[in-house]
Amino acid sequence: MTKKHNIILQPSGSRGQVEEGISIRSAARDLGVEIESICAENATCGKCMVLIEEGRFEKYNIESKRENLSPVSTEEAAYFARRPKLLKDKGWEVGQVRLSCQCKVRGDVLVNVPEESRGNKQIIRKTARERAIEIKPSVRKYYVSMTPPNLERPIADWERLAKGLETSMGLVRGTDAKLPRWHELTIDYQCLRTLSKTLREAKWQVTVSVWQDQEVIEVQAGYVEDSYGAAVDIGSTTVALYLCNLRTGEMLAAESEMNPQIVYGEDVMSRIQYAIEHEDGLEKLHKAIVATLNKLLKQAAKSAHIKTEEVLEMVLVGNSTMHHILLNLHPKDLGLAPFVPAIHKSVDIKARELGLHINPSGNIHVLPTIASFVGADTSAMIVAEEPHNQDENWLLIDVGTNAELILGNRKRLVCTSTPTGPALEGAHVEYGMRAAPGAIERVHIDEKTLEPRYKIVGEDEWNTGKAKGICGSAIIDSVAELFRAGIVDSRGRFKQGLSSKRIRKGESGWEYVIAWAEETSIGRDIPMTQQDVRQIQLAKAALFTAARTLLKRSGLESPDKIILAGGFGSYIDKEKAMLIGLIPDCELDKVYAVGNAAGDGARIALLNIEKRNEIDSVTRRIERFELPTDPEFQNQFMLATSFPHMSEPFPHIAHLIPNRVADPMAKNFMK
Amino acid sequence: MTKKHNIILQPSGSRGQVEEGISIRSAARDLGVEIESICAENATCGKCMVLIEEGRFEKYNIESKRENLSPVSTEEAAYFARRPKLLKDKGWEVGQVRLSCQCKVRGDVLVNVPEESRGNKQIIRKTARERAIEIKPSVRKYYVSMTPPNLERPIADWERLAKGLETSMGLVRGTDAKLPRWHELTIDYQCLRTLSKTLREAKWQVTVSVWQDQEVIEVQAGYVEDSYGAAVDIGSTTVALYLCNLRTGEMLAAESEMNPQIVYGEDVMSRIQYAIEHEDGLEKLHKAIVATLNKLLKQAAKSAHIKTEEVLEMVLVGNSTMHHILLNLHPKDLGLAPFVPAIHKSVDIKARELGLHINPSGNIHVLPTIASFVGADTSAMIVAEEPHNQDENWLLIDVGTNAELILGNRKRLVCTSTPTGPALEGAHVEYGMRAAPGAIERVHIDEKTLEPRYKIVGEDEWNTGKAKGICGSAIIDSVAELFRAGIVDSRGRFKQGLSSKRIRKGESGWEYVIAWAEETSIGRDIPMTQQDVRQIQLAKAALFTAARTLLKRSGLESPDKIILAGGFGSYIDKEKAMLIGLIPDCELDKVYAVGNAAGDGARIALLNIEKRNEIDSVTRRIERFELPTDPEFQNQFMLATSFPHMSEPFPHIAHLIPNRVADPMAKNFMK
Repeated sequence: MTKKHNIILQPSGSRGQVEEGISIRSAARDLGVEIESICAENATCGKCMVLIEEGRFEKYNIESKRENLSPVSTEEAAYFARRPKLLKDKGWEVGQVRLSCQCKVRGDVLVNVPEESRGNKQIIRKTARERAIEIKPSVRKYYVSMTPPNLERPIADWERLAKGLETSMGLVRGTDAKLPRWHELTIDYQCLRTLSKTLREAKWQVTVSVWQDQEVIEVQAGYVEDSYGAAVDIGSTTVALYLCNLRTGEMLAAESEMNPQIVYGEDVMSRIQYAIEHEDGLEKLHKAIVATLNKLLKQAAKSAHIKTEEVLEMVLVGNSTMHHILLNLHPKDLGLAPFVPAIHKSVDIKARELGLHINPSGNIHVLPTIASFVGADTSAMIVAEEPHNQDENWLLIDVGTNAELILGNRKRLVCTSTPTGPALEGAHVEYGMRAAPGAIERVHIDEKTLEPRYKIVGEDEWNTGKAKGICGSAIIDSVAELFRAGIVDSRGRFKQGLSSKRIRKGESGWEYVIAWAEETSIGRDIPMTQQDVRQIQLAKAALFTAARTLLKRSGLESPDKIILAGGFGSYIDKEKAMLIGLIPDCELDKVYAVGNAAGDGARIALLNIEKRNEIDSVTRRIERFELPTDPEFQNQFMLATSFPHMSEPFPHIAHLIPNRVADPMAKNFMK
Repeated sequence: MTKKHNIILQPSGSRGQVEEGISIRSAARDLGVEIESICAENATCGKCMVLIEEGRFEKYNIESKRENLSPVSTEEAAYFARRPKLLKDKGWEVGQVRLSCQCKVRGDVLVNVPEESRGNKQIIRKTARERAIEIKPSVRKYYVSMTPPNLERPIADWERLAKGLETSMGLVRGTDAKLPRWHELTIDYQCLRTLSKTLREAKWQVTVSVWQDQEVIEVQAGYVEDSYGAAVDIGSTTVALYLCNLRTGEMLAAESEMNPQIVYGEDVMSRIQYAIEHEDGLEKLHKAIVATLNKLLKQAAKSAHIKTEEVLEMVLVGNSTMHHILLNLHPKDLGLAPFVPAIHKSVDIKARELGLHINPSGNIHVLPTIASFVGADTSAMIVAEEPHNQDENWLLIDVGTNAELILGNRKRLVCTSTPTGPALEGAHVEYGMRAAPGAIERVHIDEKTLEPRYKIVGEDEWNTGKAKGICGSAIIDSVAELFRAGIVDSRGRFKQGLSSKRIRKGESGWEYVIAWAEETSIGRDIPMTQQDVRQIQLAKAALFTAARTLLKRSGLESPDKIILAGGFGSYIDKEKAMLIGLIPDCELDKVYAVGNAAGDGARIALLNIEKRNEIDSVTRRIERFELPTDPEFQNQFMLATSFPHMSEPFPHIAHLIPNRVADPMAKNFMK
């Protein structure tokens, strides 16, 4: 029998055992990860490059090393010999980077598939949507022309510059702006160090970059028009960086990469645990994210044809754990009751203090956190959506492994968070997968015939293409349709005695087959199981209960508007989400999906300093509710596991609900 | 013939050639440097320890290495073996440190004689005089007791602390103080990093150190009363550090050391030159001073029984060159016309940015510079004497190799500087020496007999003891007395035909013998030569012309008060200084010597933040005059070379002036 080895593919996290001798590209395909190639595996196109990560990955219980692959072939070596610039730019060496069509598995490996090599580009990407943002950056440039010093006026370089700058700032900004006098202006120490040289080389004609109308952070020779900034959304899984022109607001590049901390733990709790258990845990996590940010920055700068030193500010958002690790603050107390962050307020620190390779005199602005599980990413969502500027009561929900909820209007804002588990994102569901080609993304079940129709990502027509699995939106659809068609009851149980060959007793209990084996690319039936339905019930009950708690605390029956942030919200059918009781009842056309609100918020904060002050002040007055401390929570949670809910009317989707069954035993449903 | 080797002794700078095989201690004595010993050179007392500096010293054209001394003897090794703690505390290793009574010269060496080993302790030391300073430090401590977080109130650590701190600050400072609200307070990033841990270990009872009522820079467990700060005066020759209690103002330790940059150049111009000529020149100079500051800090902390991390602020002063090198700013443009500093205004930077080992979150405050040759040391002198708060017009003079002058009152202040050369400090005068035991410090010449009387440092009576040389105060005395007794004329020329065996033609021209060989410890006559008188004429003319220029620019005939700062001013006879025209005419009891005003000013700025703001504002309005640009300068300078002056009346010492001779040829006096 052939020997088997463990293969882990990042950033997707796909893993499995493959036979010795198979190429990485073939192994990846078997695990559902497509890697590009246009040369028919002849080692000439180079589209299939992958990176071999080295080290011991506790989480997967494997030791990954380059030697666990066949040696670099002559053809492969020849390919890389023709691409010295590529290797240099990326900082890769041959052996670390391989052509996945050439290298054969001889042991365990963890392989990173770079964005450019991925065949199935993910459709749910953190792409900032185009928004009209008023440009009021924290860094502004002013041209200053000075009379050179002479023996009659040998005033110091800084004072000469500051006096010229005072005039320039006044000319540009007008006298109504609250501008400091020349002697109140300051200059960053590292910038001061090169000032004298720059002024002389520039013959006293310079462009000065001023941060917050206060601190000079760069002096460039001659007239320079543009400044650049980067907005970064550090997700637990994906890190996205948006490079922007601070003058025009234009987005010049967007780069994303998997969060390298994933090798230390898949979710925030496991990373906190890692930092607690390892003396150098925090340091490793911190250095990993800093290195990735520097890499993304370099890539973005390269694609925008600018230098990284021209980037004068970086605005960062992320959940509280990502926030702490980025700032090298120990996340221990985020993970232990009473779950306390080190700091709420926004932080401004010099890039050099964090080792981030924008201009060393540039500042890093990190948005405020709101609570242990309501982080700077939620602050960014508020910046993007501005519930605090509304008269209506808005309910903002960002769904991920954890869901954060904000409710309120200009008078009052309340927030909470709840773990929802990974089910809503397609994980922990038997045939769950990401929204990539081959994924079923829509499901409809005929309530008479109990036959399904489905739509596959990448296909224009329903019921065409080969299915590979079910993505998040179709999981919601399936559960809602099973309920609407009367296949599962309001408590989520498969009903007995329905005449459909699709309803059957599978290995782990009752299930409904959505796609038969012959309709798939994996050669196996794709069902929704009783277990899958239970996972969704738990997730939606948690989310609903959190929303209901906020509404109750605010004295509201229902929100005026529901805003779903994040990739998840963008792809689900809101009617079906409401039918299973994932979100509270509300007029359907008042439910909005806004995409990557955290990324948008980071970008807005980068381009508009007033929004930073605004969010600092807003977050100070948001009321936090911790659900586990709410005595009603357990009771409410149980009622919320039903479809759509045990005790709420849901008038807006009432017409879709089959005959309701009153069931006094509901509380015991999970036994 | 015996071989000879070069020996350099620091910090005095004494140098000479000595015979092979002589001990360092004996060699030093021959060169006029006494090294302590109480064990009769038996290698038991250890009082004679010296440090052997290694490296190539271009300035002296020697290569100094340990191997140029006899190996460590058994007795010497035994002594150091008994003192492991001493070696550890000082960071010395045997071989680097030697007992100077034991080690024999076998090649060139540069030897550093530490303060504690010096036999002739210098009397002119930079010792801060006791002054009443109002204590308003920039760093204040507040005790904060917090309710620990719980699930109902899981507010972040920083916000919890800030709210408690707002209350504590208000309670301590009263409601009339302009204190920030809790959300306006900030915390230094490095301090934030350890905040969560400290709060929990301290069980939420902490003492918080706040800088400028704004930024938290330290959080200590429990109740802590005292904070510490250091004031530093970086002289070109000597660096002095004063460790103070910031609450009481008490000075806990004073440490001084030679400026290590001396090996790269004796005066500021040669150090600027070094930085220009060597690519790593600035870096070497900068690192040398930072290392010395850290060493002094460590010593001071040790002697005060505190930790260096407890030092929360350091205030630094020094001339513009020392200022630039400390801040790692290239001093090039200080040395080239039009002589422009990089910055005038005071600088606050984090200790960690400079690598200074006070608390890393602590700040370094550097006082403002006024001009290229009027540095932060002059600013400190102004802080100490406060001419800007007077109705009278004061003339402040700090005499060194360069003299800085400030003139004015609360309405107007003008300043200038002038090179005076080292003659006034006893250098470049044939038998000049520092004010150490054996130095003639006072001279009187009988105008009838032309016989001198003199007083030696360390002797109570006149004309007793053995003379070794003449120190600065006696050089002024001698020249004044030679003039008063009619031995030299008003143009500084020795008169012909006077009948005294003390007046004779020596090797380099006419001279007057102050002490005969048998009255000295060096076995040679000690004269004042024509050349010495010329040196003093040049120096005093420069100083007087600078003062006169300032007076003229201010429309004044004479100052209301003359303040002489620095060691030089403390020891000279003011009447005699006026007689030779070193200082302008003025009532004698209006001439004050104030000692180390720069050191005092640094200490005042450390202890009183209002004085820092005051000096920043004062230095902005001081008018600078560069003498070489004054068309009158050359003419005035020539007139000023005469005693006391060619064209000024000097009524207050007129009775001492012998018959004045009008001499139209005065302009040619130097030919």
